[in-house]
Amino acid sequence: MPTSTIELSGHIIDSMMLPRIFDVIMDIGGSFHVEEFRVGQSKDEPSYTRIALSHDDEGRLAEIVAACQQQGAVLVASAAATTEPAPADGIFPDAFYSTSNQPTSVLLGDRWVEVEDIEMDCAIIVGDSRARCVAVTEVRAGEAVVVGHQGIKIAPVERARSMDVFGFMTSTVSAEKPKHLVIRELADAMRQIHRRGGRICMVAGPAIIHTGAGVHLSRLIAGGHIDVLLAGNALAAHDVEAQFFGTSLGINLESGLPIDAGHAHHIRAINRIRAAGGLRRAVQSGQLRAGVMYECVRHDVEVVLAGSVRDDGPIPEVITDMIEAQRQMRRALHGVELCIMCATMLHAIATGNLLPAVVKTVCVDINPAVVTKLADRGSSQTLGLVTDVESFLRELAECLA
Amino acid sequence: MPTSTIELSGHIIDSMMLPRIFDVIMDIGGSFHVEEFRVGQSKDEPSYTRIALSHDDEGRLAEIVAACQQQGAVLVASAAATTEPAPADGIFPDAFYSTSNQPTSVLLGDRWVEVEDIEMDCAIIVGDSRARCVAVTEVRAGEAVVVGHQGIKIAPVERARSMDVFGFMTSTVSAEKPKHLVIRELADAMRQIHRRGGRICMVAGPAIIHTGAGVHLSRLIAGGHIDVLLAGNALAAHDVEAQFFGTSLGINLESGLPIDAGHAHHIRAINRIRAAGGLRRAVQSGQLRAGVMYECVRHDVEVVLAGSVRDDGPIPEVITDMIEAQRQMRRALHGVELCIMCATMLHAIATGNLLPAVVKTVCVDINPAVVTKLADRGSSQTLGLVTDVESFLRELAECLA
Amino acid sequence: MPTSTIELSGHIIDSMMLPRIFDVIMDIGGSFHVEEFRVGQSKDEPSYTRIALSHDDEGRLAEIVAACQQQGAVLVASAAATTEPAPADGIFPDAFYSTSNQPTSVLLGDRWVEVEDIEMDCAIIVGDSRARCVAVTEVRAGEAVVVGHQGIKIAPVERARSMDVFGFMTSTVSAEKPKHLVIRELADAMRQIHRRGGRICMVAGPAIIHTGAGVHLSRLIAGGHIDVLLAGNALAAHDVEAQFFGTSLGINLESGLPIDAGHAHHIRAINRIRAAGGLRRAVQSGQLRAGVMYECVRHDVEVVLAGSVRDDGPIPEVITDMIEAQRQMRRALHGVELCIMCATMLHAIATGNLLPAVVKTVCVDINPAVVTKLADRGSSQTLGLVTDVESFLRELAECLA
Amino acid sequence: MPTSTIELSGHIIDSMMLPRIFDVIMDIGGSFHVEEFRVGQSKDEPSYTRIALSHDDEGRLAEIVAACQQQGAVLVASAAATTEPAPADGIFPDAFYSTSNQPTSVLLGDRWVEVEDIEMDCAIIVGDSRARCVAVTEVRAGEAVVVGHQGIKIAPVERARSMDVFGFMTSTVSAEKPKHLVIRELADAMRQIHRRGGRICMVAGPAIIHTGAGVHLSRLIAGGHIDVLLAGNALAAHDVEAQFFGTSLGINLESGLPIDAGHAHHIRAINRIRAAGGLRRAVQSGQLRAGVMYECVRHDVEVVLAGSVRDDGPIPEVITDMIEAQRQMRRALHGVELCIMCATMLHAIATGNLLPAVVKTVCVDINPAVVTKLADRGSSQTLGLVTDVESFLRELAECLA
Repeated sequence: MPTSTIELSGHIIDSMMLPRIFDVIMDIGGSFHVEEFRVGQSKDEPSYTRIALSHDDEGRLAEIVAACQQQGAVLVASAAATTEPAPADGIFPDAFYSTSNQPTSVLLGDRWVEVEDIEMDCAIIVGDSRARCVAVTEVRAGEAVVVGHQGIKIAPVERARSMDVFGFMTSTVSAEKPKHLVIRELADAMRQIHRRGGRICMVAGPAIIHTGAGVHLSRLIAGGHIDVLLAGNALAAHDVEAQFFGTSLGINLESGLPIDAGHAHHIRAINRIRAAGGLRRAVQSGQLRAGVMYECVRHDVEVVLAGSVRDDGPIPEVITDMIEAQRQMRRALHGVELCIMCATMLHAIATGNLLPAVVKTVCVDINPAVVTKLADRGSSQTLGLVTDVESFLRELAECLA
Repeated sequence: MPTSTIELSGHIIDSMMLPRIFDVIMDIGGSFHVEEFRVGQSKDEPSYTRIALSHDDEGRLAEIVAACQQQGAVLVASAAATTEPAPADGIFPDAFYSTSNQPTSVLLGDRWVEVEDIEMDCAIIVGDSRARCVAVTEVRAGEAVVVGHQGIKIAPVERARSMDVFGFMTSTVSAEKPKHLVIRELADAMRQIHRRGGRICMVAGPAIIHTGAGVHLSRLIAGGHIDVLLAGNALAAHDVEAQFFGTSLGINLESGLPIDAGHAHHIRAINRIRAAGGLRRAVQSGQLRAGVMYECVRHDVEVVLAGSVRDDGPIPEVITDMIEAQRQMRRALHGVELCIMCATMLHAIATGNLLPAVVKTVCVDINPAVVTKLADRGSSQTLGLVTDVESFLRELAECLA
Repeated sequence: MPTSTIELSGHIIDSMMLPRIFDVIMDIGGSFHVEEFRVGQSKDEPSYTRIALSHDDEGRLAEIVAACQQQGAVLVASAAATTEPAPADGIFPDAFYSTSNQPTSVLLGDRWVEVEDIEMDCAIIVGDSRARCVAVTEVRAGEAVVVGHQGIKIAPVERARSMDVFGFMTSTVSAEKPKHLVIRELADAMRQIHRRGGRICMVAGPAIIHTGAGVHLSRLIAGGHIDVLLAGNALAAHDVEAQFFGTSLGINLESGLPIDAGHAHHIRAINRIRAAGGLRRAVQSGQLRAGVMYECVRHDVEVVLAGSVRDDGPIPEVITDMIEAQRQMRRALHGVELCIMCATMLHAIATGNLLPAVVKTVCVDINPAVVTKLADRGSSQTLGLVTDVESFLRELAECLA
Repeated sequence: MPTSTIELSGHIIDSMMLPRIFDVIMDIGGSFHVEEFRVGQSKDEPSYTRIALSHDDEGRLAEIVAACQQQGAVLVASAAATTEPAPADGIFPDAFYSTSNQPTSVLLGDRWVEVEDIEMDCAIIVGDSRARCVAVTEVRAGEAVVVGHQGIKIAPVERARSMDVFGFMTSTVSAEKPKHLVIRELADAMRQIHRRGGRICMVAGPAIIHTGAGVHLSRLIAGGHIDVLLAGNALAAHDVEAQFFGTSLGINLESGLPIDAGHAHHIRAINRIRAAGGLRRAVQSGQLRAGVMYECVRHDVEVVLAGSVRDDGPIPEVITDMIEAQRQMRRALHGVELCIMCATMLHAIATGNLLPAVVKTVCVDINPAVVTKLADRGSSQTLGLVTDVESFLRELAECLA
């Protein structure tokens, strides 16, 4: 019977690697023999196991091995990774290894090399003793693309052992739980990241403006707490509308009341920014004097506004080509250690697609379905908060003031 | 062709009476002839119309008339209301007139008499020149119950003309809108109601405790802003659990973290209150020293705790018989002019069933479906707020401090 | 340092017992020493471990032990369970052991005795070499109630190893996944349960009638697939309304259109059933000739209708006292092996509170929040389906036809 | 005091024009004098009114007039529309008239000219005795853009008088109502539209594939019931994944079970279609042999796949530039009389932005918040259905088979 032997080490029981591996084997219908098992006798000691996997069917065995790799198992006596040349620009070989967002290494010759810029649903390209992760649109004909599952090693991000806000929160904080302490701890985590030179990204939806939370986000930016802002046309348009007309989607932000004939304000605001030559110029010329986008310009926040098919306008800084928008988002996310996603599903998923699993993420939305969907997408250090975005940003800004 | 003539007067166009009446006629397939129409020439002048309704089918015509009555139309040359005796205790005659929650009068002899204690889905009982609204469980054999649709006049509560918080908010304030001003205006409305001697009722769900908002509700009660508290066993149990153990459903209210073995705290708390002989005695004996229930006892708030089939325990003050619970809720609601419903669907619907349409209601929930469902249930002066109950109560308590 | 030693055996890794125990120890800040560890070498072989737990604080150590017990750990050299007499009717001693819904045994003298009628949030009463689970309302003064954590053993229900519908579905089936196969397997499971003499319970909300799914539920009952029906006044009232008037809450079930003046139909229907002397008599007298309640009467389904404070009427069979309703639900649930909960949060939670963890449950609701909430409540064999209740019941009835 | 006189005619009471106008006047604080009022005496007779509006503030009066225009009022003695040249490509004059999606005419000289291609949030460009609606990205420097509110007439789409499925459904059909008849009537409406040469558009989200409803949509397309398909990369990718691997996002569509290592299937499927040179070529070469995209190619359905920043790949046919995607969507929507939006918020809102109000729309989603949001966006003939998209498409396909 076809057999492969894998090894696992670390906190393999409480970090769930081993239970998941047993699940996988049984789901696919394989059998196993535990050849060696040493359990850590105290909480700081690692465990180790060596398991022989077998299955009647060679293909199913390969599936088991691949799934075990995702959990951090390494093939004993692993052969080097094999590659095939990309058949054309923008096309991978059919058997390409599809990446996860976990830290990944490939065996080149007899040396394990870490894959740079890891990102899910991409391929690994090797050359010059280096390995990098590349999206399908970016591959060039002839580049050496890793195929199959040989010579791949994944080091899943473990649940934090220390009791920080990302460690003990395994999933989401529902609408029915107190959130004070969590926000306070998040503020502490933000200060620590900045102290050690890390970067913090905010992914922001237009409901921030609609709910009157624009002032709180502006304070966070003015205070230097945000390094990167990822958003769409709507956030910028309604932020500018609020500055020019005091409304957001035609609702007066002071009174919460609709303004008759106010519906057109957002398209008028967009038109004025287009006439001014963009947001930056509108700030420089003194036309735009406050708000989220104004503070971004003043405090040199790196902003990427990605377009969408439902946009009105758009504002000149909005990138209307999606491939280019993804490229600029990737660049902006370099060095980001924490990503706060507020009240946007589209941009949050888009950003999540590009993030390696080591980046901590916080998802805030009043809709629990959105929080669950985002928290599910694989980052192992995700904190979901079901709450009003206005009260979240107000409290966060207060904690950081 | 069978014909009936109705009259309408007041702000019949902008209060939507007339458009709805035209809708009803066309939906049922009747025809109409507008015999007279005088429109108010300025915004303070009432309008008047007299319309002849007809339909081939006598029964369908009666349906049209009944639906027009709900909108405030009065039959011209109305005959007196007819009655039949209740056939037994707890049973109406089959043809009983089923009430709405709108102010209603019946024509007894040649005098219009207002129905007392109006409530939806009940019957009208007349006697001694009086008319009162009675639930089916309360009717006694032989009482004179109004049947059919003759001699009924409804005065629908008009949308407030003045620009108060219940006037301009025709429906709900979504999660995507600013809520500051609305909460400030609600606080003003509460002060005015108390100044003129009205009463204010809070209908409260246990999520108030889970989210850590118990302290805000306690402040509102201690400040004298609440006269009646309607809730269930869970609110009281978790409030007491929070005082005894610092948890709510086993979650530490300071840290938001689950306490191992804390799940049993709520049943332990209930058991202690049972041992103490109830909430009031636990306060008197000094065992219960803070929290929502403590403040209710100290400030003589009228509390009705209605049981539910999902209750643990329950706490001794909880009324386990539902008919009796409804009776006590009806009594407690006398004189209430404003009802604030927070984070509870069961008790909010139960209370809504008992309220006349003239009572203003505010529904607060993080789930928009709950707010919509409650706002739909017929009170014409309902304000729905989709938001975190903790931030709502905190802000309300701050506005009233 | 205070130390206790526990043992664990079975599929302790893949059934998650061991990972959860490690979590608990670290969350509470204890330390451990793995004294012995034998891992099952193939998938059918059990594993075994013996672990010494320690913590500076005696109380915290007791918490760790209690939490480990919930995961199935047994204290090595366990002392017999200790008891105290109940201080009064309806009151437990303060230190009572609060039950979970998992199979539980107590050490009486030197014999492990299984607790009868296990149910969560109750106490264990011993006497006559027997141990039974009792709700706080049912305890009598002087009965011997187990206190503390000594002499308690829990056997957590393991995830099914076989690939049945409850085994592979660890949590919920979202609205975004195909449900055909799942419903087919559920139908198979129902047939098997009936073949071996088990009973099946349906917990049903009124949306079943509103959506026109009453006919499918009626078919299931007429086909003998349901033994117990747990519901409230609303299900029965709207079912009867549908038979008498063709509407549900005033909506025509054929056309989906509101019937003017149809809103009162449900209270008229309730009144007629009250006049008839109840549902059973209305069937016997020929007044009620079809529908869910009719089929229940005809096929001797055990029905418990539990009241609620939001009820209109109610129908005579509805139990208005909640303690009595819980008693009758407990009795009806004896021998039930599968519980299907459709479109009701109140009755589903109430039923879930009474069920031992070994009973398989299926929760069906269009609202994912309801499904998540129910699936979370601790039964380890829960299947959640986010879908339209009408399409679920139609497909289930077709599969079983 | 500044005064303007407006006229209104038609079914101005029951179509809500007049009540809304009274609302607007009072909200902005103006006063009015009803100079003439003739009410239609039967249901087929139109009504007429002439009202003098006044307000102390000239600007507020202009707001009132603008809002009345939205309801169909026409200024008595209206002056011709005034225009200003666009200052640059892609920029409107600051005072441009911002369009609604209602049928609109402008007074050019003394002739009312209907605006072509009406769409919300655009401007009106006149020239050559014609007027057309243009998005801000499409305007060229120097074109004559209508400014202010003079010479504008709107004919709001009236609620259908006849009892069709769009007429009686004023808003959404909740999850709690029967949907059979509604789907049957929708099928009838589709047949009628095709009989008279109209076109039908489907806007489709990927949950159609995830839920296994791809087969039903394929049947609808193969049956010739769909003329235009608007979707994104995800629908096409998962449809192709289902054909190549039998999965959708790695979930087996037969069993509903996740396939280990199946997560990568969608990116493999995209890569294969890229290698084949696109969907059309994959069909022509025989690689793609069934499914939604296959049927679209075979039956010459007009397909627009609009990109999004969260896309993987994408598939070659996906338009990655958003301005170009909107252009192609506008073109594809010409002649469309019915638009069915299934399980997609992004593409549904994008499409809704481009549609004139006369196009009937149906929104289907399991999330009531999505349905409400879409139904609110202004088309007066919108039907919202809260239901499982799989059961909706299955039933629709059965009705049309």
